[in-house]
This record gives sequence, C-alpha cells and structure tokens, in this order.
Amino acid sequence: MEIKLFISIIFLLIGCQATLGGYTYTTKTFEVPLDHFSFVNNKTFHIRYLENNTFAGESSGPIFFYTGNEGDIELFAENTGLMWELAPKMKASLIFAEHRYYGKSLPFGNESFSGPEKLGYLSAEQALADYADLLAAINPEGRPVIAFGGSYGGMLAAWFRMKYPHLVTGALAASAPVRQFEVECDIFNRILTSVYKTSYNENCSKNIAKVWDTMKQQMANDKSKQDFNAKFKFCKFLNTTQELDEFFDYLNDVLGNLAMVNYPYESSFLAPLPAYPVRQFCYELKEDLTLNGTLLLDAFHRALNVYSNFTGKTKCLDIASAYDSSMGDAGWNFQSCTEMTWSNCQNGTTDMFPPKAWNFQEYSDECFKKFQVRPKNYSRMAPGEIRYGGGNLAGASNIIFSNGLLDPWSGGGIFNDQPGILVVVIPEGAHHLDLRASHKDDPESVTEARRLYVKQFKKWIDRNRKFKNVKRK
Amino acid sequence: MEIKLFISIIFLLIGCQATLGGYTYTTKTFEVPLDHFSFVNNKTFHIRYLENNTFAGESSGPIFFYTGNEGDIELFAENTGLMWELAPKMKASLIFAEHRYYGKSLPFGNESFSGPEKLGYLSAEQALADYADLLAAINPEGRPVIAFGGSYGGMLAAWFRMKYPHLVTGALAASAPVRQFEVECDIFNRILTSVYKTSYNENCSKNIAKVWDTMKQQMANDKSKQDFNAKFKFCKFLNTTQELDEFFDYLNDVLGNLAMVNYPYESSFLAPLPAYPVRQFCYELKEDLTLNGTLLLDAFHRALNVYSNFTGKTKCLDIASAYDSSMGDAGWNFQSCTEMTWSNCQNGTTDMFPPKAWNFQEYSDECFKKFQVRPKNYSRMAPGEIRYGGGNLAGASNIIFSNGLLDPWSGGGIFNDQPGILVVVIPEGAHHLDLRASHKDDPESVTEARRLYVKQFKKWIDRNRKFKNVKRK
Repeated sequence: MEIKLFISIIFLLIGCQATLGGYTYTTKTFEVPLDHFSFVNNKTFHIRYLENNTFAGESSGPIFFYTGNEGDIELFAENTGLMWELAPKMKASLIFAEHRYYGKSLPFGNESFSGPEKLGYLSAEQALADYADLLAAINPEGRPVIAFGGSYGGMLAAWFRMKYPHLVTGALAASAPVRQFEVECDIFNRILTSVYKTSYNENCSKNIAKVWDTMKQQMANDKSKQDFNAKFKFCKFLNTTQELDEFFDYLNDVLGNLAMVNYPYESSFLAPLPAYPVRQFCYELKEDLTLNGTLLLDAFHRALNVYSNFTGKTKCLDIASAYDSSMGDAGWNFQSCTEMTWSNCQNGTTDMFPPKAWNFQEYSDECFKKFQVRPKNYSRMAPGEIRYGGGNLAGASNIIFSNGLLDPWSGGGIFNDQPGILVVVIPEGAHHLDLRASHKDDPESVTEARRLYVKQFKKWIDRNRKFKNVKRK
Repeated sequence: MEIKLFISIIFLLIGCQATLGGYTYTTKTFEVPLDHFSFVNNKTFHIRYLENNTFAGESSGPIFFYTGNEGDIELFAENTGLMWELAPKMKASLIFAEHRYYGKSLPFGNESFSGPEKLGYLSAEQALADYADLLAAINPEGRPVIAFGGSYGGMLAAWFRMKYPHLVTGALAASAPVRQFEVECDIFNRILTSVYKTSYNENCSKNIAKVWDTMKQQMANDKSKQDFNAKFKFCKFLNTTQELDEFFDYLNDVLGNLAMVNYPYESSFLAPLPAYPVRQFCYELKEDLTLNGTLLLDAFHRALNVYSNFTGKTKCLDIASAYDSSMGDAGWNFQSCTEMTWSNCQNGTTDMFPPKAWNFQEYSDECFKKFQVRPKNYSRMAPGEIRYGGGNLAGASNIIFSNGLLDPWSGGGIFNDQPGILVVVIPEGAHHLDLRASHKDDPESVTEARRLYVKQFKKWIDRNRKFKNVKRK
C-alpha cells in the first residue's frame, strides 16, 4: 500500500507514463504566460507536452519537437510514426507539444471558449511563443532541434524555424499550406474534385456534382423528404433548407477529409477508414447514374458509409461535425476568424460543388456573430501573410516543405525550390502521409521522401554543430 | 482666404510638410491594431511616420525604413543624416516610423501611461508588428527595403529583418546591443570607465571614482551641505541621502550619455554638447585632486557644466532626468521592466562607481512598485533572448552590426563574423556615430564604414531582385 502511494507520488512528480498505439511517453506540463506580447494580463497557465527520452541515451543527439496543431496532442503523437521510427536511429529525444486551447492545454479550463476576453489569447504567435519558452527551458545545452508538423502544425513547424532560428535547427513542414492566404479561392475544391475524378473513374465526381440538386429536390416535398431522412438515418430529422445546407457543409468536410486521409492502408486519423478511402467511396459511385435520383442517392449513401460507418457500429448519422472529437473544432473556427482566414469558393465547373462565391464581408459578419471578432483586414495583405510571408521565403532556411499531390491542401503548398528550402513532392501522397509510420503498402515516393529527410536532418545538425563551435567563445 | 482653406485641407489630406535640421518630410499617420497578437481588445490607434519620396523619382528604388526607438521620431530623423545623404545617391524613399507609446504615437493620448491596462501594449513585438503592417501597406510593389536603426532602434532594425525577412531586404543595426541580455552585469560601466580613463588622462576616471564619497561627506553636515547645494545650484535643494542617491543616478546617466554622444563635433542629440564632450569633461578633471574635497567638487562641477550647461543658459541643475525631453523616459522604464531587462552592476574596481550588486528581485520589486508589472522570468534565458536569440544569429542574414569602440553599449554588440552577418567596427566611434550626417571632423573609420554600407546595400538589393525574378510566377 505504501509502495503504491510512493509510486503514485513519483508519477505525479515526473509526469504520467502512458502508452498509445504502441508508443510510450511521459505526459508533462509547462507553465507559460497567457499573453507573451503584452503586459495587461499577467495570468499564466500550463500547456501539456509528451516526452520520450529513451532513445537519446547519454548522447547529446537532436530533439525532435512536434509543434502541435488544432487538436489533442496524443492524436498527433499517435499519427506521427515517422518521429518514433527515426528517434532510435538518430538518438533523438521526442517532444510533442500541445497547442494552447486544444486538448488539455486550456488556459481557463472549460470556460476557455466562453467569449473573446478568454478565447482571445488563442493565436499562432502565442502558441509559437509557448513552444519557444518550452524549448528554452528543456534544452539549455542547445542540442540541435528539428521541428516537425503536419498541416497547420506544419505551418507552425516552418514558422517556428523562421521566427526562432536560434532555437530551432530545421523544420519538416509536411503538407503545410503556408501560401493558402494568397491563392485563388477555388483551389482547394478544384484539387479535391480532381482526386474524386481520378481515384476510380470520372463518374464519381460527376455523380457527386449531381447529388446536391437531387437532395434539394428530395427535400422539396413531404413524402420524398421522409424517404430521404429514412435513407440517411440522420440522428436529428432534416426538415428545413437550412438544415439541408448544414448537411451540405458536413458533406463538404467529409469529402475533404476523405481526400486528406486517402492513405494506402486502413487508418483512423480523422475517422476509422479503409485503405484508399476515396477509391472505396468512388467505387460506389462508379456507374453513370443519370436516370434516377433515388438510385444516385442510394449509391451516395453507400459511399458515405465508407466514412460515417466503416466500423458498422454507427447507429445514426450525426452531421454536427465531420471530425474526430480529438480535433478542436471550436478553437479552429476561432482561428479561422482571426488570423487563419483563407478564402474558399466553389463554382460547379472546375469543381463538383454548387456555386458559392467568396464573400469576405459575409464571412466576417458570421465570425462576429459566433465569436464577436472579425478577421483583421487593415491591409491588402492578409495578417498571416504579413506576419509569416506566405510563399515569400526570402531569408528562410533549413525547412523541408513536403506535399502529396492527392492532398487538396497542396494548393497552398510550396513547390518552387529556393535557397535554403528543400521541396519534396510525393505524387501518390495524401495529407502528410510522410509523417506516418512506415507501412508495407506505402508508395515508393514516400519511402524515398523519408530517406531524404534523414539525410537533410543530418546535414543541418552537422552544420549547426560546426557553426556553434566557430561562434561560441 | 478660400485658397488658404483649400491648401489647409490638402495639407490635412496629404499630411503635413515640415522641415527640420535642413531635412524636409511629410508627416503621416497609419492605423494599427492596439494588440497584434491577441483578440481581446479590438481597439486601433494611429502611429506617426515621416516620409520623403523626393529622391526616389519614378524609379522603384529601395525604401530606407527607420525603425523608430524610444523617443520622438523627429529627433531620430534629424540625427540620422546617413539616410538623408544616401537617399539621393540610391534613389531611395525615406520612412521614419515612430515607435508606439513615444512621441505622438500614443494609443490612449495622455492617458497612455496611466497603468498596465493601458501601458501594457508597449512591447518590441507590437512595435515591429506595427512596422510590418505599415510596410505591407506602403510597399505593395515589393520594392527592396533596408531597415535602419541605432541603439534600441538598431536592435529593432536587426529583429525586423530577422522576424520579417519577406518584408525587409536587409538591416543596418548601428550600436545595437542585442547581446545585452546575456553579458556580465558590469560590462557597461567597465567600458564607460575606460572611455573616461583614456579620453584625456587617467586622473579623470580616478577623480570621478572619488567624487561619490566626497559628496557623501559634504552632505553629512549642515554647513557643507549648504555649500554643496550652493555649488551645484540644484533646482530643488538636496537634503536627504535618498536625494543624493537620485543625484548619483543622474550623474550615472550623464556620464553614460556623454560617452554615448562623444562625437567629434558639436551636436545636440541627447543634450547640446561641444565636440568630444568626454575630453572636455575630463579636461576639468585632469589634475591629481587627492588633497582637497572641495577642490575635487569644484572641478567636477565645472566638468558637469559641459553636459548640463553647455549653452550657458541653464538657470539651475534639474536632476529629474538627464535626457532630452524628446526621449520617452516613462515608456523606456516600462520596457526595461518587462522585456528589455538587462542586468547592471558596478564594483568600484573595474569601474569608477561605488559598488552596487545586481539584484534581480529588488529590481523586480521596484518595477512592480512603479508599473505593477515584473520582468518575465520563467526560464534560464531572458525573454528577449528567447524571442530574438541574443548573440545567437544562426539563421539570420543580411544584417550589418556596427559598433564604435568608444560606446559603452558596444559590450552588448556583435563582433564575431558569421555567415550572412557583416560586422563593422569603428574604433573612434561613439554610439551610432555612423548613422549621423557626414562631417569634416569624422574619423576615417566612420567614412569607410559608410562606404561599406552602400556596397552591402547594393549587393542585398541586387540579390533580392534576382531572387524575386526567379521565384515569382
């Protein structure tokens, strides 16, 4: 009994050891100022981070630092097998830092989302400053540091190197759409559509394009509305046009997510899914289904089940969110309303969605309604572009930008080689496939990319050591 | 009458044209968010900037951008003749941006300093973000930009390039003590003392070292206290030990300022002063004045007049501030209590001051008393070091760090060459002498430095143009 208590106390002191998806880490917390850049509110709080030092041994090998994105950090630790596989080879320590306002890193606990006076400290700059403070504290010896991140986390990894090069030796920014601020509003949907066009056969995207009107027609009279509801088994009966619009939004997200996690093997990142889920989805929509609206919807329903009911255990279709609950929807919606505002539009010709223009004012009004904030818009350049440069990487160095061509976010990615920047293209890759653990079904391009990363990391680390030896007194 | 009104309106619209020290510029204002990094307070305000486009002509030459420091921007525009002299040669536009909370760039007008809830938005990051927004707005064509700054303004110029390389092509950081966060606490006073030791003869620093005790003795009895007060003609009678300490603080500042503006010709940057003011000061203290306390104080009083009464018009000695009223004492004291905290100590052996150890806690308590804030101290590294890297310039590029060896701030300067960084040493230079207009009495080293700057600027600009041509679609 006493020994147990002792062990519990030790655990409390050193943090909590846990194993997830075969990976073992210690969970710790770190105190950060709520506001790094002003001095009005002196509150501090704790961010969570996961640590594994077992591969580093006595060496002063590198630190692999995952710059957590918009979700529970355990989700990213579990889905970033690359870091776990490289750590023993490079004697690296692993750190997965959780982004403020996500997972368990909530400055005001359950109140954190209650209004702008609490939620207002959620920003990329504040998160990067958290990571900088954490690194400064855990790396007093100045071991080389490689930042890793995917998607928004990849943007953070790149920006972490750009803004804090004295703390970060280099960064792997996987599927990081840093140019998303400046690209055409239809680019995401254009690439997305081409993925559905090419994954099985062209009928897939054509059928999806017809689904929207067909659904509207079904909802237009009471009898077919009943049938429609019965077919999709919504958790909450779909009655109004507005509710149908919500379903459309959900489907947009589903189609996007399927493309993002269109991995060559079963996975469960945003949802439990089969291998090549877009192909599975499109398999159900492979016929030329022009003649019969109901036939189209039947097929579409079967296709949708690939995403919403791969496990066969889903009782009803919940359209409130297309994301795993580990992802921080509320936080991300706020960030999209402040700094990470990207235009989005669809036109029904270069994409498979009903036409919808981008209307900044409407978007801004919606933001104000939801959060009492508006995207900053003082200049011709987006705030994120002014802050981080978008695609202008003059002066940046030691960053790998990788992109899979099957990823709709690749439209905002970096593809042009420039001094100090390594561009890696993975033709068969979806959204940051390269960050995942290796798998027998991986395409050769991703295996090759990972080999390249190791070479590049070693170069950065060697150069960093030389620089330090020359520079330091 | 109508024409006059019309002209006034035009002036209001285009800003106000003014001429100062022979330089002509238009005064404009620019709207910035009070808080760039959080979304709790949505207030905006206007910073002031000075502009001159007359040298640029039709060309798309560079923009020379002065990153204003802790004072009225007109003071810096007037004392940065280098920019005015280079502009016609390089067809440059000139911008002098005023730092928030200084000069006329007050977010809450006269209330700006009333407490941390108003003053708390004064920080280097917020100021840099103001400058970034301003540049993004006035430079949509992406003309090459060279940032200029001296002292804290030089730190800002360097950091502006480091944090916003996509907006800033290169920076001249003159006498910028970016390493001040990490150096020994006595370094400033050590260099300062050596300037007084070598400017005329060694007796100077020796006599100064004896002044402190002599003054204490004078203040110890009523008769000599009267004499002491009569000699120095204080605006407010010096009565207590605490008041004497305030005089010591004033003298510390005066001795520091004299060394900083120890220029080879008459100037009036921090105060109206003769050429080589330290030499003038030390001329009065050249004798071995060991025998007689009063003799020492007479000589010291004559020396002090070099600073406090060069014009001969000063009626009484005001020890409240050693600075010109254009400098923003209140703002800078706040910044020293939050981000720009540098240790400072004196020991009476390597310097000419009475021993005084550095006590962080005491300093912090004093800050709290004055401003209800404390310097952030969460980590082994100072916040400014975590944010900007101090002397670790890994990843930085296109920055010239210049230092005069007669400048006590050179102790925190960059002296070791490293990739992408140009180090310029001006042996006969005081605090950012190189930024001033050329003068017939300039030492050759500063003339040579200025020649080097032009060469370097041209290289950066050419490389920037090439990079842009390659990169842009």
